[in-house]
Amino acid sequence: MKLRLKFFLISFSIIIYAYGQDTDRKIQFPDLPEYLTLKADLHIHTVFSDGSVWPNIRVEEAVMDGLDAISLTEHLEYQPHKDDIPHPDRNRSFIIASEIAKPHDLLIIHGAEITRSMPPGHANALFIQDANQLIIEDPIQAYEEANRQGAFVFWNHPDWIRQREDGVAKMTDMHQILIDRKLLHGIEVVNDMTYSEEALKISIDEQIVPLGTSDIHGLVDYQYRIAQGGHRPITLIFAKERTVEGIKEALFDGRCIAWFDNLLVGREEWLKKLINSSLTFEFDDYIGPTSVLKVKVTNSSDAAYLLKNNSVFSFQMNSDVIEVQPHSTKTLHVRVLEQKREIELDFEILNAIISRNVHPNMKFKVSQN
Amino acid sequence: MKLRLKFFLISFSIIIYAYGQDTDRKIQFPDLPEYLTLKADLHIHTVFSDGSVWPNIRVEEAVMDGLDAISLTEHLEYQPHKDDIPHPDRNRSFIIASEIAKPHDLLIIHGAEITRSMPPGHANALFIQDANQLIIEDPIQAYEEANRQGAFVFWNHPDWIRQREDGVAKMTDMHQILIDRKLLHGIEVVNDMTYSEEALKISIDEQIVPLGTSDIHGLVDYQYRIAQGGHRPITLIFAKERTVEGIKEALFDGRCIAWFDNLLVGREEWLKKLINSSLTFEFDDYIGPTSVLKVKVTNSSDAAYLLKNNSVFSFQMNSDVIEVQPHSTKTLHVRVLEQKREIELDFEILNAIISRNVHPNMKFKVSQN
Amino acid sequence: MKLRLKFFLISFSIIIYAYGQDTDRKIQFPDLPEYLTLKADLHIHTVFSDGSVWPNIRVEEAVMDGLDAISLTEHLEYQPHKDDIPHPDRNRSFIIASEIAKPHDLLIIHGAEITRSMPPGHANALFIQDANQLIIEDPIQAYEEANRQGAFVFWNHPDWIRQREDGVAKMTDMHQILIDRKLLHGIEVVNDMTYSEEALKISIDEQIVPLGTSDIHGLVDYQYRIAQGGHRPITLIFAKERTVEGIKEALFDGRCIAWFDNLLVGREEWLKKLINSSLTFEFDDYIGPTSVLKVKVTNSSDAAYLLKNNSVFSFQMNSDVIEVQPHSTKTLHVRVLEQKREIELDFEILNAIISRNVHPNMKFKVSQN
Amino acid sequence: MKLRLKFFLISFSIIIYAYGQDTDRKIQFPDLPEYLTLKADLHIHTVFSDGSVWPNIRVEEAVMDGLDAISLTEHLEYQPHKDDIPHPDRNRSFIIASEIAKPHDLLIIHGAEITRSMPPGHANALFIQDANQLIIEDPIQAYEEANRQGAFVFWNHPDWIRQREDGVAKMTDMHQILIDRKLLHGIEVVNDMTYSEEALKISIDEQIVPLGTSDIHGLVDYQYRIAQGGHRPITLIFAKERTVEGIKEALFDGRCIAWFDNLLVGREEWLKKLINSSLTFEFDDYIGPTSVLKVKVTNSSDAAYLLKNNSVFSFQMNSDVIEVQPHSTKTLHVRVLEQKREIELDFEILNAIISRNVHPNMKFKVSQN
Repeated sequence: MKLRLKFFLISFSIIIYAYGQDTDRKIQFPDLPEYLTLKADLHIHTVFSDGSVWPNIRVEEAVMDGLDAISLTEHLEYQPHKDDIPHPDRNRSFIIASEIAKPHDLLIIHGAEITRSMPPGHANALFIQDANQLIIEDPIQAYEEANRQGAFVFWNHPDWIRQREDGVAKMTDMHQILIDRKLLHGIEVVNDMTYSEEALKISIDEQIVPLGTSDIHGLVDYQYRIAQGGHRPITLIFAKERTVEGIKEALFDGRCIAWFDNLLVGREEWLKKLINSSLTFEFDDYIGPTSVLKVKVTNSSDAAYLLKNNSVFSFQMNSDVIEVQPHSTKTLHVRVLEQKREIELDFEILNAIISRNVHPNMKFKVSQN
Repeated sequence: MKLRLKFFLISFSIIIYAYGQDTDRKIQFPDLPEYLTLKADLHIHTVFSDGSVWPNIRVEEAVMDGLDAISLTEHLEYQPHKDDIPHPDRNRSFIIASEIAKPHDLLIIHGAEITRSMPPGHANALFIQDANQLIIEDPIQAYEEANRQGAFVFWNHPDWIRQREDGVAKMTDMHQILIDRKLLHGIEVVNDMTYSEEALKISIDEQIVPLGTSDIHGLVDYQYRIAQGGHRPITLIFAKERTVEGIKEALFDGRCIAWFDNLLVGREEWLKKLINSSLTFEFDDYIGPTSVLKVKVTNSSDAAYLLKNNSVFSFQMNSDVIEVQPHSTKTLHVRVLEQKREIELDFEILNAIISRNVHPNMKFKVSQN
Repeated sequence: MKLRLKFFLISFSIIIYAYGQDTDRKIQFPDLPEYLTLKADLHIHTVFSDGSVWPNIRVEEAVMDGLDAISLTEHLEYQPHKDDIPHPDRNRSFIIASEIAKPHDLLIIHGAEITRSMPPGHANALFIQDANQLIIEDPIQAYEEANRQGAFVFWNHPDWIRQREDGVAKMTDMHQILIDRKLLHGIEVVNDMTYSEEALKISIDEQIVPLGTSDIHGLVDYQYRIAQGGHRPITLIFAKERTVEGIKEALFDGRCIAWFDNLLVGREEWLKKLINSSLTFEFDDYIGPTSVLKVKVTNSSDAAYLLKNNSVFSFQMNSDVIEVQPHSTKTLHVRVLEQKREIELDFEILNAIISRNVHPNMKFKVSQN
Repeated sequence: MKLRLKFFLISFSIIIYAYGQDTDRKIQFPDLPEYLTLKADLHIHTVFSDGSVWPNIRVEEAVMDGLDAISLTEHLEYQPHKDDIPHPDRNRSFIIASEIAKPHDLLIIHGAEITRSMPPGHANALFIQDANQLIIEDPIQAYEEANRQGAFVFWNHPDWIRQREDGVAKMTDMHQILIDRKLLHGIEVVNDMTYSEEALKISIDEQIVPLGTSDIHGLVDYQYRIAQGGHRPITLIFAKERTVEGIKEALFDGRCIAWFDNLLVGREEWLKKLINSSLTFEFDDYIGPTSVLKVKVTNSSDAAYLLKNNSVFSFQMNSDVIEVQPHSTKTLHVRVLEQKREIELDFEILNAIISRNVHPNMKFKVSQN
C-alpha cells in the first residue's frame, strides 16, 4: 500500500535547547606562542558501527565540549547493527556528520577503524578518502591502502584486556613491521578510561605519536560524568591553522599530547610548552618590610596543576606540594630570606607525565618588572 | 571479498559507568493508599523513526530517570532515516528495547505514532500487537485497526504550531467522530516544552484522559537540562499493579496526571489524591505558653508545592504564599489565637491545575494525637 | 605589678581574607528612575547590649551583604554584659563602628533601642545625637527626647510572642497617643524570622512607615543560612542621595519597603515602582509564521518573581503561575491568537504584598519597537 | 536616675537556627585502634583580648565544626579592648565559655597566651588553674608559673613575620633554656594560614610536640571560607578518653598531628597510624579471565589523599599519582601480570609531611580473604 501524505509538516515544534551554550563544560587550554591548541577526539562510534547514537549527537556533544575536531571512526569489519543498517557505503557517518556540522565551527575528520584480532589489533586511519577501499582481508594490505590514501594511522588501546589479558601493551613482530615501514604513525596512550604507561614507553622507543581518545560508544555525558565535572579524554594538537590539513600536518609532526582525567601525557617538549602557556608566575610584592615575597601563579587551563617544590625556598602558606586549580590565581608566599629582584622557582609537575613515573621538571623565573 | 575474522573479540573493555546509580535525578512521587504511582514516558523516538539514538539509550535514560515504563512510539509514516534503516518491520525498536530492558526493572510498552496532517494530526497508539498493521492510508481506519489491537490511543500535541499556527488546541469534526466512536481515548495536555490549557479543556469537555509526554528525539539530558535540576515531562499513572496490563487498565480508567516543569496537571480527583499522599501536616507543639502552633509540613514528592493560604489563620514566618521544597519538611508557625487541639488549614495548590487558571483548593486537618 | 612591654608588635600576621569580595551574597535591587535603592539593616545588636560580636563584625557582615547602611541599636535599658562592659557611654558601639567603617563604603546611622515592657514594647530611635540622653524612666518622655534629637522612631516586633502571646500585633492606647503626637513614625512588619500581616495593617491604618530588620544578635551567616542562599531581612530605601541625611529624608517620607525571605512588603506605590524597575518585558519575535509571540522577561533583582497570569492570553510553555528567577531572563511564548504589534500582559505579583492576602496587580505593555 | 522595669521580658523571639546541624562542615577523622582521635583548636581569641566575638560564638563555631575541645587563649598582656572591658579577672572568657558549653558536647580547656616580644615571642599555656597568676613581668618566671599550674606550654607562630622578618622559625638561647628546663613542650608548625617547615624541624630536633591551631580573631567562617569547603587548622589528638585530662595526657605524650588545608603534619609514627585508620585497601576481584585486579581504596577521613605509586605494578585507570577523595571509595585496576592471592602496594603519601619535603612511605598488603 502506498501512502499519500499531503501537507505533511514534520519538524520539532520548538527547539528550546541551544546546544553549545553551557560554557562550563567546554574544554579549555591556551594556545602556544607559535601554535593553536586544538582539541580533538579522534576515536568515536555511532550507530553506523557499534555505537548507540546517530552522528548528529556526536556533533552536538562535541560542540558542547568545545572541541575543534572529531572523527567518527566506525569499525570496518564489526557491524553489529548491519541487519538494521545494511548501507553498503562505509563513509555514511562521515557524510551525515559533515552535513550536520556545517552551521557549527567543528571540523569533521574522515576516519575509520581497521578492526582485527591481535596482532595487529585495532587501528584508526584518519584523513582517508574512502572507507570502503579499506575493507581488505590482509591487515597489512589494509594499512597500505590507508597510507595510499594519505592516512595517519594509530594503534588503538594496545592495553585492551580483551586482546591483552594482563592489560600490558606489548610490541609484536607485525607492529614492528608496520612501524618500520612507516605504515603506523601513532599509538593510544589513553583510551576511554585507561592510561597505559607501557604504551607511552612504546611511543618513546618506537618514536610514534602518543594520543588520547574517548572511543565513545554510548553518551559522553554518562561515560565521563560531565555533570560531576568530568571530561572525555582527548588529544591536544598544536596546529599552525584550524583546518583538517592543519591537524594532519601537526599529527604527522608529533605535535600533540593526551588529556585524560587530570593527567597530561606525552612528549616532554610539547608538555613543557603547554605548561609554560598554562601557568604564569608574577612577582607581586614583598610583605611590608619582610623578605617574604608574594608570587601570583595563574593557571589558564582546565588542568588542576600539582606542583612539587624543588626550589631552595619554602612557602609560608603551603607545603612542598601545591595545587593550582583550573582557571584560577593562587598567591604563594615565598620565604626568599633576603629581598631580591628576581628568584627562580623549581617544580616537578606531578599531573604531567613523560615516561613511567617520570614527571617534567621546570624552572620558572620570577622578576620584578 | 569475504573476511575471515577468527578470534574476533569485541566488547567494551570495561564498562565503568553503572547507569541507574545517580539517585538525584530519579523522579519520585509517593504511592496512593490504594494505587501504585507509576512514572511513564509514553511518547519517545529513536533512530527507527526521526530520533537520534538507538533504543538502548532510551532504556538507559529511563533507568536513570527512575521511570517504570516507556513506549518507543516511532512514526509509522515519517521515516527520514529510511535510506539507512530500511527495515520493513516497524516493531524493531520495541523488539530491541524489550531485549535490552530485560536486566532492568523497566516496562516496555508496545506503541507507535500514527502521523498525519491535521486533522487528525498525530496520535499515539499504545499496547498494540503489530505496528505494521497500522500502516493504513485512511486515518480513521488506522485508528480502527489500533483499537482492534486493543490500543489506548491519544492525540499528540494538539497545540503544535506546525499544525496549529496560533498554538491553540481545537477540536475538529474528525476528532469528534473519533471520540464519539471511542477510537480516541486521551490527549496530551503536556508535550515536550509545552502545556496547553486548551487541551486540558478538551480533555474535560470530551471526557478523554489528559497525559504528559516528552516526545524526545535527541537526548533527555540536554533537552530537559537534567544537570541543572530539570526533568522530562511524564505521566504519573495510578495502577493496581506494576505491569503493562496494570498501566493499560489505569489509563483506560483515566487514573493519571501529567508532571511538567513544576506543574501537576489533570483531573481534580487524582490531583487531590496525589497531593494528599505527597503532603503531610503534623501537629507539633505550641511555642511555650503562647497560642502560636508549630505545624510540620512534609513533602515526599519531587514537586515544589506552592500553597496559597485561605485559612482564617496567619503565619508568623510566612506570608500567604508558602513554598514547600521537594523532599523536605517545613515548620509553619500558625497564629491560632487560642490554644486548640485541632485546627484546619485551607490552601489553594498553585502548582497544580485542573482547568484554565483553576487550582485545587484543599483543607488539611491538623490534630494533636 | 606593672608590665613593661618593649617592642611589642601585635597585629595579625597576614590578613588573607579580603572581606566584601564574595559577590554572590551581596543583596542587589535596581535603582528607581528617580531614586537610589539603598539597602539598610536598621536593627542590630553587639556586645554593647545583648549581642555576641564586637562592632567590627557588624561592619564586616554588612560589607559582605552589600548593604549601604546599618544602625547598631543597642538596648538602652537591657545590658546583660554590664558586669564585663560597664562603659557608661551608650554611644560606644556607634563610635567604634563609625571608626571601623571609614575605609568602607558603609553608612553608620546613630541609633538606640528604647526597651520597655508592653506597652509600648520596644522601639528603635534612629538619627539620634546622644543615646545617653534617652535613658529616661517614663517611656513617653524617652520618645519625646528621641524626637527632640530629630529621631525617626519605629515600633519593634509588635508581634513578638514574649510580649504578645498570640503573636498578633495590636494597637494600644499608648501607641495611639505616640502616633497621634507624631512621636512614633514607623513599625516593623518584618523582624528577624517573622512577618506580621497585622503589623502591616497597622502601618496602613495609622499611616506609619512599614520596615523590615534583622534584629541580629548572633552571626548573620548562621541565622540566615547565607551559605545556603539565604539573606537577612532589610529595608529597601528609596533615597535622593546615598547619605545618612538622604536615608532620614526618605524614611520620614515613607519611601521604603521590607525585603524578607522571598517577600517584598510595603506600600503599593513603592512596591510597584520597585517591581517596574526590576522586571522588563521585551517584545522579541513571532515564531515563524505563527501567532505565538516570544516575550523576554528580565529580572534584575534578588527576588524570585512569582507572577500569576490575569491576561487574556495563555502561554505555551507555562501555566498561569510563572517564576522568574533572580538576575535571569525568561522567554514567554504567548498565544496572541493573531499577530499584533503591541500586547498587554496582566499579572498578580504573588511575592509582593500590600495588605493581608493582597498582592499588587500590574499591567505590562509589550510593544514592537 | 533609676529605672524600674517591671515585667521585663527579654529573650530572643524564636531561635530558629539550631546550630550544630550542618554535618557537611564537621571535621571527621577516624579513631585509631587504641586511641580516640579528638579534634581540638587550642589557640583562639575573643573580645576578652583582641578577638571580635563573645565566647558563645566560639562555642557555636566549634560545635558546628564538630570539634571535641577548644581553648580560649586570651593574651594576658595585650588587652586592646580594656577601656570597654576592664574586668580584672583574666579567667572570664573561660568561665563564660564553660557555662555556655554545658548543653553541648564540647570540652573547654583553660588556657592563656603569654604574649611577649621575641624572644621568646608568644606562647600558649593550656590546662592552667588561674590565668591571673601568669601575669609576671619576667617571661621565664611566667613559664615557670604556668608549669607550676601543670600547664602544657607551646611556642606560637615561630614564623610570624611581625617577629621574624624572613618568616623563618629559629631557635634562640631563651628557647633552648625553656626547652632544656622542660618549661616549653610544644610548637606550632601550623598557625592560621601558615605552615612552617622550619618549625617542624625544631619540633624534631628539640623533641617538642608539633601542633596546629587557628589563632582565630574574627569569624571562622570568613577566615577559612567554610562555605567554599575550607576548614580551620586544628590539632588531631590521639587520646585514651574524651576528657580534658585525656587530652592533657596525650599532648604531654606527643600523640597528635596538625591538620591544615589538605596537609597532615607531624611525627611519622602518628601520621602512619592515622593514615592506616583512614585508608583501607580491599581485594575485590580479577576482571574476568585477566590478570587485572580491582582493589577498592576507601578513605574515611576529611583528607583528600594524594598517593604516589612506588609499587612494581602500574594501574590501568591512573598514572602514578592518585587522589582518593574524602569519604569515598575508589577502585584501582592493578596490572598484577599474573593472578595472585596477595599483592603489596607501596605509596608515598604526598599530603602528609614528616620533615622538610619528606612524605611518609607506606606499604599496604591486599589479600584475598
